[in-house]
Amino acid sequence: MTQTSATLEELVDQFSRLPGIGRKTAYRLAYHVLKAPPEAARELARAILNVKEKIRSCSVCFNISDDDPCPICGDEERNRKLICVVEEPHDVVALQRAGSFDGVFHVLGGVFAPLDGIGPEDLKIAELVTRAKSDVEEIILATNPTPEGETTALYIAKLLKPLGVKVSRIARGLPMGGDVEYADLHTLAKALEGRTEF
Amino acid sequence: MTQTSATLEELVDQFSRLPGIGRKTAYRLAYHVLKAPPEAARELARAILNVKEKIRSCSVCFNISDDDPCPICGDEERNRKLICVVEEPHDVVALQRAGSFDGVFHVLGGVFAPLDGIGPEDLKIAELVTRAKSDVEEIILATNPTPEGETTALYIAKLLKPLGVKVSRIARGLPMGGDVEYADLHTLAKALEGRTEF
Repeated sequence: MTQTSATLEELVDQFSRLPGIGRKTAYRLAYHVLKAPPEAARELARAILNVKEKIRSCSVCFNISDDDPCPICGDEERNRKLICVVEEPHDVVALQRAGSFDGVFHVLGGVFAPLDGIGPEDLKIAELVTRAKSDVEEIILATNPTPEGETTALYIAKLLKPLGVKVSRIARGLPMGGDVEYADLHTLAKALEGRTEF
Repeated sequence: MTQTSATLEELVDQFSRLPGIGRKTAYRLAYHVLKAPPEAARELARAILNVKEKIRSCSVCFNISDDDPCPICGDEERNRKLICVVEEPHDVVALQRAGSFDGVFHVLGGVFAPLDGIGPEDLKIAELVTRAKSDVEEIILATNPTPEGETTALYIAKLLKPLGVKVSRIARGLPMGGDVEYADLHTLAKALEGRTEF
């Protein structure tokens, strides 16, 4: 196939390396950039570079942040005795959006994945243990309810228990708006197990 | 909502301005860039800037190209007496992919769109007339079979006819693998009208 512009092809290639972007979508995006005002393209390119240059890791909670400590760890009004442990930075965004949590976070940077060779030393677990030894009342384990997330939570709980800190796990059950009829058996089992009194 | 990184938010904003990219997808893309090696992010940014800096318009056919004339217009083996008129550069890519056309192209840069104020003077129609006056045998109008594309084709056909050049329109009918039962009535009407003898 004769292509008229290797430069455009290169951008199509680059876009199609992004997750969930197929070749047709990559073409549409590349044409959009081609037709957009030069300033818009420069802003997009700058935003991409900035993410790599400006974003660092908070030295307290290991969430991504422009500043160190991050705005959440630096917020005097939050309860620092309550730490919510999550897998990734986007979990913090989701929990912040829910709006009901006023404690601080701890981002592990992943979960155990033996097949990919990811074990305890690849996650920020030692750092969590250090935080747990300071003035902390409760640590909520909010890793995903997947086999990997459950294993990681179990491992961390066993490490933290001897320190005398209260360790809890987020509830697993039917999602709001969900349907008992269509729920999978593991979810139903957890929903029954975790039932609360009216 | 407290965000921890304005830099990441800015990239999410930028991505969500692209066509077909919603906010959730933009987040996924931004996290991907954040986790990707710095070199990958630099390559993506560079590809975006290159598209605006390096791609020009072929002075013969007005297709996008890294060179002027473009590789198609510069190809000695193609039949320059046969010009296929299309709306946009990606139409050239599609027709090239089909592989059966060995003539040259003319990219209008759009179609008539009265509501957006796009008329004949905004398209490369005068330039097509100039080309038609040189040694050309046939001009194939391959604008889309939409109301706008049909109107534009009709307008151009009326301009070119007096010049004595043969003017044709690509066939409209059932797509290969299509279904008579499910075809819309305009397509069926065109398919009947354009029937060919066995």
